[in-house]
Order: sequence, then structure tokens, then C-alpha cells
Amino acid sequence: MKKLINTPDSVLSDALRGLAAAHPELRVDADARVVFRAAPKRAGRVALISGGGSGHEPLHAGFVGPGMLDAAACGEIFTSPTPDQVQAAIAGADTGAGVVQIVKNYTGDVMNFEMGAELAELESGTAVETVLVADDVAVEDSTHTAGRRGVGTTLFVEKIAGAAAEEGQDLASVADLARRVAAAGRSMGVALTSSTVPAAGKPTFDLPEGEIEVGIGIHGEPGRRREPLEPASAIAKLLVEPVLADLDFTGAPTIALLGGMGATPLIELYVMYGEVAALLEAAGVRVARRLVGNYVTSLDMAGCSLTLLRADDEMLRLWDAPVATPGLRWGE
Amino acid sequence: MKKLINTPDSVLSDALRGLAAAHPELRVDADARVVFRAAPKRAGRVALISGGGSGHEPLHAGFVGPGMLDAAACGEIFTSPTPDQVQAAIAGADTGAGVVQIVKNYTGDVMNFEMGAELAELESGTAVETVLVADDVAVEDSTHTAGRRGVGTTLFVEKIAGAAAEEGQDLASVADLARRVAAAGRSMGVALTSSTVPAAGKPTFDLPEGEIEVGIGIHGEPGRRREPLEPASAIAKLLVEPVLADLDFTGAPTIALLGGMGATPLIELYVMYGEVAALLEAAGVRVARRLVGNYVTSLDMAGCSLTLLRADDEMLRLWDAPVATPGLRWGE
Repeated sequence: MKKLINTPDSVLSDALRGLAAAHPELRVDADARVVFRAAPKRAGRVALISGGGSGHEPLHAGFVGPGMLDAAACGEIFTSPTPDQVQAAIAGADTGAGVVQIVKNYTGDVMNFEMGAELAELESGTAVETVLVADDVAVEDSTHTAGRRGVGTTLFVEKIAGAAAEEGQDLASVADLARRVAAAGRSMGVALTSSTVPAAGKPTFDLPEGEIEVGIGIHGEPGRRREPLEPASAIAKLLVEPVLADLDFTGAPTIALLGGMGATPLIELYVMYGEVAALLEAAGVRVARRLVGNYVTSLDMAGCSLTLLRADDEMLRLWDAPVATPGLRWGE
Repeated sequence: MKKLINTPDSVLSDALRGLAAAHPELRVDADARVVFRAAPKRAGRVALISGGGSGHEPLHAGFVGPGMLDAAACGEIFTSPTPDQVQAAIAGADTGAGVVQIVKNYTGDVMNFEMGAELAELESGTAVETVLVADDVAVEDSTHTAGRRGVGTTLFVEKIAGAAAEEGQDLASVADLARRVAAAGRSMGVALTSSTVPAAGKPTFDLPEGEIEVGIGIHGEPGRRREPLEPASAIAKLLVEPVLADLDFTGAPTIALLGGMGATPLIELYVMYGEVAALLEAAGVRVARRLVGNYVTSLDMAGCSLTLLRADDEMLRLWDAPVATPGLRWGE
């Protein structure tokens, strides 16, 4: 294992220290392991929190800032944050208008965010709405999941619901919008290599030279099948076809995210996006907005994923609204 | 070799197709392999171009846009663009006020940008100023270089001179500023793994488990020495000390770039930045602005580099000016 770390045990705390040093516009609670905005949003606006296991950066801490999240609870690598962390995120983010928490559908996350919300409701009476993201079309159940896994659509939910909260929509409206976005996203990923969790010290799975894992999860959970490594044009089909088979993306503006898994260079992501864009056009999907880069990653895994959102005009307007976070920034 | 590509020969053209599909705000001349802004800057403003071998994305094509470059000439992977490409970039970018070309100090780049500038001057009388970046403190001469290599400071030059051009400074002023920025930057990098050039099909060099290459170049040129892999805190010293030994960074606002080489996940870069920031503070260096992420990369190399700019108030003001490119965006 070759990593730029001090010790496997200190990766998260060391990274949070670096995040704080790199981003004075964030406030890092090193004890609670929760990342907040340094300048909280205006009182009376709905707050948005998320979180999960670390190792998927910039998700979630890198999406804290105006126009997106108010706080992110950072679990150990690939490990759910504790209910206490979630409660701390809720308590620190709430401005009195209630909190929407965005949770990727993994069993530990679902349980701990629910418990965190209950603690917050009991102790401070905070109204909390939970929105689950379960967009991965690869498999129905998985190692850490009952039902579909939550992946790239999380970014869409955080951005669009974040914009709605920023402009003053109330708790029910923001939660409803977030659920509609979550329901309108689909994702599929492929791995060329396994990631290596520092505490494990070796790759999560073996993937021989010349093979890829189709339908990979962001913690290295098994996908649908192994296949020989093929040209980008063929791999693009392995991503596009199951996504389009699962939801009709025609007749609506679509937002596309072609995301790297962490160790794939940008030039390869652009190669992949060229192939994906051609397939989407041939299928009659109108891509209105697109992102190419590392957004929802899996440590040092090589590979990529495609996430599509069947948007509407309101979602598109909120997508275009200003955002200023370390990981996503435009229109300030 | 496991890569998301079609064929080794088509990587650049396929990536440019994807770049065009992903960024309607860019205009990609697929024949000349030059990337322009779709909406050219106002006539009478100085234009900025750069370019070089591909494989360092987002540098340079990802830095084309308002507040930064007007055009980037994209050579094959790790291969200088031809004089014809440079000429096409100059001709397409010039608005009548002359062109500053920013060139990383590699023998092929220096020669071909000079020839491209001569062609442009001869054929259309365009005034071209060339600014060399040679900021890598690791080695004095190298595989592809007489004198120091040009690396991370290139981003600082493109951003700061780009802002000056955008606000209407004339050719001599923009070129002078660019040269002052180039002279005020220092960089040092470390590799954990080699990158693999698609056409070669295998890693450029062997780096055994447990060893790192200190002072690596962005094409895999040898650095200063091999060392055992150490904790991030020790690796940070290997980067900070030679940079500070080469230029006094005290008594001025410093801009810091902790950049990934392409395959290193963001969480490790934050670990490294935490260590680097602590060392800089202990050394009395006042970091006024900072970037952590993948900006000047080397395909799928794992590792990172530190680049520091000894800025002044004018450079800092221009650094903060709005920029809207795929790779760098703020303050619009």
C-alpha cells in the first residue's frame, strides 16, 4: 500500500486538519468530525446536511458552502458517521427552520442518520426530514445495502435542494424537491482497479489485468459481473444502456455527471464523456448540463460512473443557481 | 495497462471530442487541436495562450475561459504541440492587441512555441511575447530540459496574467507581470507510482513498493533521489524544505498549490496539505491563498507537488479576480 498518509488510523483527522487549513470558509469541528460553513446561512432558512463514510471526497465535506450543504458529518473511511455526529451536524446547522438530511442508501448510514435525527428532535425539538438516495441501477441489494445503493445522484440532490433552501423555500418544499430529485436520478459505475482502504492495507478485491468490474459500488461492493477490458466506446455502452433502460430520459432536460472514481485521470474521463455524449444523443436524450471530473469517488479506485438526472425546468433553474463550495463552484 | 481509452493513438482526439461535448463554452478546433473560448474576449485586449503535451489536465485546455487563457495548443501526450498548432492558437486568439504565450521550460515546447510565434509574426504581423516558466527546484537540467522544468507556477502565471489581460493591461505590462510571477514561483514534487503513457503501454519507470521518487518531473523524468516511503509529515518536509531553501517566502503574501499528480485521491491531498501548512507556518510563511486538488497532473501518476508563489498585493488582487474555466472558477 502506497499512500500519502501518516498512519491508517489518523487519515480522517489529518485530512480534516488539512481541509480546515485549505478552506478558511469552512469551520471544521475536529472533535465531532463535522464540517460546517464558517459563515452560517441566514436565520429562518432551511438547513441541509449530509455525510457518510469518508473516502468519497469531495463528497460530502467538499460540498459544504453557500448554495449547497450547511454541514457534513464525516465518518471514518467507508464507515457511517455515528448518531452523535449526525446530531451535532443537525444542531450546528439548524437556523430554526428545520433540517433536511440527505442520506445515501447504505444500511449503516440509514440507521445512524435516523438515530441522529431522533436525538436532535428529542433534545432540541428540531424538525428533521430525511431524504434517501438510492440511484445505482447496478444491483438490487448489495453488501451494505437493502435496496439500491446511493451514489452520484447525491450530488444532484445536494446542489438542487441546497439552492432551494438558500432561496428560502420551507422545510416541506425543500424535502419534497429533494425526494423528487432523488427519484429522477440513475447511476452506473465501472471499476478498472480496486480501492485500498488504509486500515486494511491491501486492495478490497482483486481485479486481474485485462478485467473490469461492471456495476461497481463506491466501497468496492461487487457489481453485476466481470468483463474483459474493452475500448471506451464499449464501456460507455455498459454504463449508458442500463441507466436508460431503467428510466425514460427523453422529453426532459437531462443533467449528466461523468465522474471519476478517484485514480482515473481527467483525460480518460473526457474520452469517456465523448463516447457517452454520442450514445445519449443517439438515444434522443437532451443533455442540458454536464459535469466531468472527480465528485463522488472511492479512494484510489480507477474507473468511472455515469449519473443522469431527468430534470425539469425548476431543477434546472436551481442547478444553475450560484454555488460556492470547495468541490462545486459557479455563478457567485 | 488499464485505461479508459479507445486506442493509444486516438486518446487526444477522443478527449478533445469529449471536452467539446462537456464544455459548450469552449470551441475545440479538432483539426488544429487547439481549444479556444467559444466567446472570444473583447477586441483590443491582450490574448493569452499556452499549451504543451497533453496528459496534464486540466492544464492547459481546462484553463481556457474568461479571466485566464484564450487558447491552448494541445500536443500529443507528453509531446510538444507543433509550431503550426502554436501559430493557429495565436492567430485564433489575437484580437489585435498582441499575444502573450506561456511556455513551460521543456526543450521541445520552447522551440516549437518560438517557431509558432515567428510564423505568426511573419504571416500576420502579430506581436507575440514569450514567457517561460522554469520553477521546479528539484533538478537543474533534466531529460527534456536545459535549465529547470516548468510545472505548477504555470497555473499562477496563467491566472494572474489572464486577469491582467482581461482588465485591459497592454502587451508589455501583461508580459512583464507574467515574467514576474514566473520568477516568484517554486515547485517540488514526489511520485509514489509512475504514470503510464498509452502509446508505451507500460509504466515509464519502475518504483518498487515502499519507495518514492523525490523531485519527480511531470513526465516521469527522474528526480533527485529514491527514498523509502515515509509518513506524510516526512514527505511534506521533502517538498517544503527545498522550496523554501530556494527562495525567501517570508514577508510577502504566499499563494500555495498542493496538487495531485492524477491518481492520488483528494483525501490524501488534504492530509498532505495539513502537514505542509503546519511547516509553512512554523517557517514564518504567510499563506494568503491556497489550492488543493488536481491541476497540473501527470496522467495516472500517484503523488503530489507543492508550488509556492511569493506574491505581492497586485498579484493577489489579480488572483482573486473572477475566473470561469473548467478547471478553475470563482468570483463570476
